[in-house]
Amino acid sequence: MEGKIETLWNEVRELSLGNSGQLDRLNFPPTPLQFLRDFVSQNKPCIISNATNHWPALSRWTRDSYLTDALSSAHVSLHLTPHGRADALVPSSTPSSLCFASAHVQRTPFPEALLLITTNNGESSSPNLVAYAQQQNNFFPSEYSTLAADCDPHIDFASEALGCLPEAVNMWIGNDRSTTSFHKDHYENLYAVVTGQKHFLLLPPTDVHRMYIREYPAAQYSYSQATGEFKLELESPPRCVPWSSVDPYPSPEDRDEQLSNFPLFFNGPKPFRCTINPGEMLYLPSMWFHHVSQSPDSRGRTIAVNYWYDMQFDIKYAYFNFLQSIHCPSIENLTPAETVNDDLGSDIGDE
Amino acid sequence: MEGKIETLWNEVRELSLGNSGQLDRLNFPPTPLQFLRDFVSQNKPCIISNATNHWPALSRWTRDSYLTDALSSAHVSLHLTPHGRADALVPSSTPSSLCFASAHVQRTPFPEALLLITTNNGESSSPNLVAYAQQQNNFFPSEYSTLAADCDPHIDFASEALGCLPEAVNMWIGNDRSTTSFHKDHYENLYAVVTGQKHFLLLPPTDVHRMYIREYPAAQYSYSQATGEFKLELESPPRCVPWSSVDPYPSPEDRDEQLSNFPLFFNGPKPFRCTINPGEMLYLPSMWFHHVSQSPDSRGRTIAVNYWYDMQFDIKYAYFNFLQSIHCPSIENLTPAETVNDDLGSDIGDE
Repeated sequence: MEGKIETLWNEVRELSLGNSGQLDRLNFPPTPLQFLRDFVSQNKPCIISNATNHWPALSRWTRDSYLTDALSSAHVSLHLTPHGRADALVPSSTPSSLCFASAHVQRTPFPEALLLITTNNGESSSPNLVAYAQQQNNFFPSEYSTLAADCDPHIDFASEALGCLPEAVNMWIGNDRSTTSFHKDHYENLYAVVTGQKHFLLLPPTDVHRMYIREYPAAQYSYSQATGEFKLELESPPRCVPWSSVDPYPSPEDRDEQLSNFPLFFNGPKPFRCTINPGEMLYLPSMWFHHVSQSPDSRGRTIAVNYWYDMQFDIKYAYFNFLQSIHCPSIENLTPAETVNDDLGSDIGDE
Repeated sequence: MEGKIETLWNEVRELSLGNSGQLDRLNFPPTPLQFLRDFVSQNKPCIISNATNHWPALSRWTRDSYLTDALSSAHVSLHLTPHGRADALVPSSTPSSLCFASAHVQRTPFPEALLLITTNNGESSSPNLVAYAQQQNNFFPSEYSTLAADCDPHIDFASEALGCLPEAVNMWIGNDRSTTSFHKDHYENLYAVVTGQKHFLLLPPTDVHRMYIREYPAAQYSYSQATGEFKLELESPPRCVPWSSVDPYPSPEDRDEQLSNFPLFFNGPKPFRCTINPGEMLYLPSMWFHHVSQSPDSRGRTIAVNYWYDMQFDIKYAYFNFLQSIHCPSIENLTPAETVNDDLGSDIGDE
């Protein structure tokens, strides 16, 4: 079976995605028909330049003073973790086991949130506190309403192609210490960078077995401002979350173990890799696995806005679920756990 | 494994195709965007009414005299078989074995071809000679050039949606004795009926295992006008053709054997079923299995024109090949032969 699954990984690249690990790049926004035909229908990502040239955000948001003036009285959702990994696997209290940790989220006055993000790059002042302003429940039009006019409420070509307005528009303000671990979303995603850079690693849904998705116990960070310390506690009652076991950028001391534990990831076709610069937009197709890291601008922050459009649960999705239901021996040798079926409800949306 | 494959059959119906066995019906031609988004991208068929109202063919082609006048000096490709089954499995000379038989094709003056088709319905005059004017190599614009102005050279909404003109336009003139056995094509197919009716049985590509595709030796009919008899000879050198073993309409005496040999077909979800009337058009998505039969008009013939557009070999195609590569025990219990991989080149195009 493993040989047949490997053939699938290779075939989708040979037929459609290419073998270079590079994405198609469009110099201008596509027409709705072109977007639908060449990318959405084929479940194929692309980078689009010159799609947001007209956004006032591109110049305005580079200035902290503009942002803090516009949001002087706003409270935003700030995600706090000790090391920049939220919705990610971290060591749990049980020796040599991992849990799926969610950030401590606190509503924070925007000026304070921005200060925490911008002064905390590069493990400087507060080595054990990383802040990331983000949320996945369409909070851009509400929390950041005074900035809404600085970018488009939806992406014209995508709305026309997909026949609907975005289900959610989200804002992301972070620094280089925050990463987002490998996961997928049940949305068609248009991801526009305003300042700084976002770095994506992408794998198509055909490569699901390379993600080593397993069940991990859910845990929650809580942060005490008094002590400046985090506590990580398993959820009670216990809850399990299916999540990718792979860290594509292991620390030097973890590298050998990662390579030997997850050979399908590290030895298979290389992930697609791209950097999205200010003014560029990534079309990230539904069900693609993505890992996101970022480089800040000269003010110490990366700002992006993304648009989630409802995906179609069509034959591609049915094929994906079938593929994921198939046992792959080299995964199972490592753990007795069953591979996890895609469950529409359990997916944790993220960037 | 069989349970997982069955889950796929059910899921693609629950999510996308519906469980009724009926196709979506559009009262008017879709916009290119709608066609692409709701049907091509989802690999989902539909019936389109009022798409060819403006074709002169709809009135003109009901008259034999119009056709024979327009084509008085034309020679067309006429497919001759003893029982109306060309590109189909028929008993071979070896006892209780089947071969894949191709028709005897002869270039025939059109008036003579039409007479043979229209006078030979219902097993009347020549019980062992069935004629079907058809070819799959874009012969409409050449063999039938004098009729070309009676219908459109391409389908507007489809050409715009798919970004290309049809790779082939084909004409089909037959009677109720000709059927086309289950097969698939590597094309997006728009199939317009001008007079008479076409009856389709359809299964999505997810259901490939239900087709019991096996290798059969290729054979060729040759017809002697002198004796009025057919000879069926295996090709030499021998050649094998992967073809569906299923006859969805077995004769009463074959019925029990078919049901017991091909339980995945007969006991699985019922095929999608539709009748396409004059003025209607079927969108038959690439890779869908289809079986075609026909009812003649009052003049004894069914006439249709179909448009083949190049398909995209994208993630859907890669998923299909993966699915087809998976062994399904209940198929293999019946034959030691390997299931057959899809091979781009070996597919025999048909309606």
